[in-house]
Amino acid sequence: MALWKTVGNSTLDGVSRVADLDASKLTITLSETLKPIPPRDTWLFGNIMTDHMVVAEFDPETGWSNPEIKPRGPLSLDPASSCVQYGTTVFEGMKAYIGPDGKPRLFRPDMNMARLARSAERMALPPFNIDQVLVLIKQLITVDRRWIPSSSGYSLYIRPTLMGTRMGLSVAASDHATLCIFLSPAGPYFRSGVKAISALAVADTVRAWPGGTGGHKVALNYSPGFLPLRVAQKQGYEQILWLLGDDMKVTEAGAMNIFIVVKRDDGEINLLTPPLDGTILPGVTRDSVLALAKAHAAGEIILPGLQQTLRIHAQERTFTMDDLWRWSADGRLLEAFGAGTAVIIASIGKIGFKSREDIILAEHEDGLGPLANAFRTTILDIQEGKEAWKDWGVLVDEL
Amino acid sequence: MALWKTVGNSTLDGVSRVADLDASKLTITLSETLKPIPPRDTWLFGNIMTDHMVVAEFDPETGWSNPEIKPRGPLSLDPASSCVQYGTTVFEGMKAYIGPDGKPRLFRPDMNMARLARSAERMALPPFNIDQVLVLIKQLITVDRRWIPSSSGYSLYIRPTLMGTRMGLSVAASDHATLCIFLSPAGPYFRSGVKAISALAVADTVRAWPGGTGGHKVALNYSPGFLPLRVAQKQGYEQILWLLGDDMKVTEAGAMNIFIVVKRDDGEINLLTPPLDGTILPGVTRDSVLALAKAHAAGEIILPGLQQTLRIHAQERTFTMDDLWRWSADGRLLEAFGAGTAVIIASIGKIGFKSREDIILAEHEDGLGPLANAFRTTILDIQEGKEAWKDWGVLVDEL
Repeated sequence: MALWKTVGNSTLDGVSRVADLDASKLTITLSETLKPIPPRDTWLFGNIMTDHMVVAEFDPETGWSNPEIKPRGPLSLDPASSCVQYGTTVFEGMKAYIGPDGKPRLFRPDMNMARLARSAERMALPPFNIDQVLVLIKQLITVDRRWIPSSSGYSLYIRPTLMGTRMGLSVAASDHATLCIFLSPAGPYFRSGVKAISALAVADTVRAWPGGTGGHKVALNYSPGFLPLRVAQKQGYEQILWLLGDDMKVTEAGAMNIFIVVKRDDGEINLLTPPLDGTILPGVTRDSVLALAKAHAAGEIILPGLQQTLRIHAQERTFTMDDLWRWSADGRLLEAFGAGTAVIIASIGKIGFKSREDIILAEHEDGLGPLANAFRTTILDIQEGKEAWKDWGVLVDEL
Repeated sequence: MALWKTVGNSTLDGVSRVADLDASKLTITLSETLKPIPPRDTWLFGNIMTDHMVVAEFDPETGWSNPEIKPRGPLSLDPASSCVQYGTTVFEGMKAYIGPDGKPRLFRPDMNMARLARSAERMALPPFNIDQVLVLIKQLITVDRRWIPSSSGYSLYIRPTLMGTRMGLSVAASDHATLCIFLSPAGPYFRSGVKAISALAVADTVRAWPGGTGGHKVALNYSPGFLPLRVAQKQGYEQILWLLGDDMKVTEAGAMNIFIVVKRDDGEINLLTPPLDGTILPGVTRDSVLALAKAHAAGEIILPGLQQTLRIHAQERTFTMDDLWRWSADGRLLEAFGAGTAVIIASIGKIGFKSREDIILAEHEDGLGPLANAFRTTILDIQEGKEAWKDWGVLVDEL
């Protein structure tokens, strides 16, 4: 029986000597028949699953069970399980890539693991050793390695999920949990090349609120947006631009962080994204865009297609719909794009709001503006191991 | 194939001719061995389940499956199910009682069914015929009738649950769903008679906000409160009093609606509860308290223990922590209580907030103030069939 590795909470006061999650105790049961990998043109985001999954269960009397890799399939969940009844699920989104050296690699997985621990704490779920979760992810990728596509823009999406499994209706924390990690092969976000998406700005329905859970990656942040998304799509928009407050602060775009590029009076460029005030998901791609922009400004890197002399001022700063309308009218709104693990970078070409005229952004030949393209290319090159940058690329066989 | 019964949404545009939920197609498979009913002193809220459950599944190609009553047990759910990954569950809480005539009965089930339909619409889940859900609830109660306790204050808690079951990770509405109804015998909310609870007022964490889902009975409203509840309990409080906004509007108490009783300058009494502005759950008990208070004021009913001449002014009105402090200091805050299906009425005896001195409410011999007691007694009498009031009591055998 091991002591808990502290993950920043005090969830298990008084029961600190139950078993921690331990990847060295992993048992592997391989599927007797492996699935054929479906043709790539049938891959939608997260609709095809690989052969295996990781499962480990937490019981408050005994702690974490020995983790298993086993054939992927449904879980047996009581209908009174906490995750079903009260939404106690947290998750992560990550990707594995095959590098030019033929080795699978991850992108900044430490950020995902830290966020997973914070999300679990926010949902009062049992704690776990995040290093062991990462080892289990690597083990699963190794077992299902044949599913990692080798073409550029293709990857293996990873969904570590921690769900509350206490059986019972009392409105309180789940003292049982299941960790389940599964994989899904992913193509480029857009079928026919990269194209700009349209977004409807929505203020009546609010994604996240100060004192809410918007700053954590928890299941329950997503479903409240499904109905407004359906309404927006009926109006011809592909995603929602989430606004907050009477001043209509811009917060996120669909399930992505948002960036805008604004031309300054002095001819230099502001790259703006809302600050992490608790309503914004601390995205790994968001953080990477900010870091690369600052590295470019500092002369540490030259982003492709941009002049080294182009001064980019990356700022985490609140901006509103009024700002967008004003900057658009003044011809200063150069680009808008979403950033997230699934899409990497998605250009936004049109922003609607109620009966007002749409904001139309400049079209670009390849669908992405110069900054959006520079960030997408650079991040993808690092993810695919074509370029190295700091410790962002992590080889899977480094176990 | 039947047309949809409209439940107020347009979810199924273009596929309006798939099968609706149809209780006449119910199949019943009884459990081979029935569980012994555990001793009542082992019943905690929602920890003991009866022998059977209702299950019906929605598929977008074929519509609702024929509903089944079958032995209660776990469901087979893919870990990528919408309800697990994105929190797409809605539910209801209801109770069945045995009346003096020996017949099981429900309390205002029409209100629960209408709210279930609204909740499903809010989560963009498939629609269903609410009358058929009620028939299925009655069928299940009839099958598990031996579980309905006959002692006063005991009942059979009913949890109709609709969960999104689409397998896939795309961040959009679930076009598959499972309706699962199950039952749990329930004792009085407090073990040792009725006693007042303590509540810690919390402003840093927010239960619900304008544009959020607080006005619907959706799974995801509950888990964000688990961590703050744990913190409050460590500070010695039993529940949370949820505040909203810079002016600290009082919204709900734990998972209950809140009422306060305030003495007016003219000696009459204000019964206040926050208005249904979208952040407040439209509770059935809440509605019943308001209706009974108005009936008392109109002379249509005399609430037990209260003088008919006592003028009660029931008002749905915003009030803040500052109001509570002021009214408490002036000796005008006579009672505070929570109202909900599980607890019926729970007196609040103490309200804390950060380092401020607790608000202490007057103690009463039986744990409930005069109004709290009057509402609890009357509602319980109607629920248990000892009194009839309007169409609130509904016999289960009226199929």
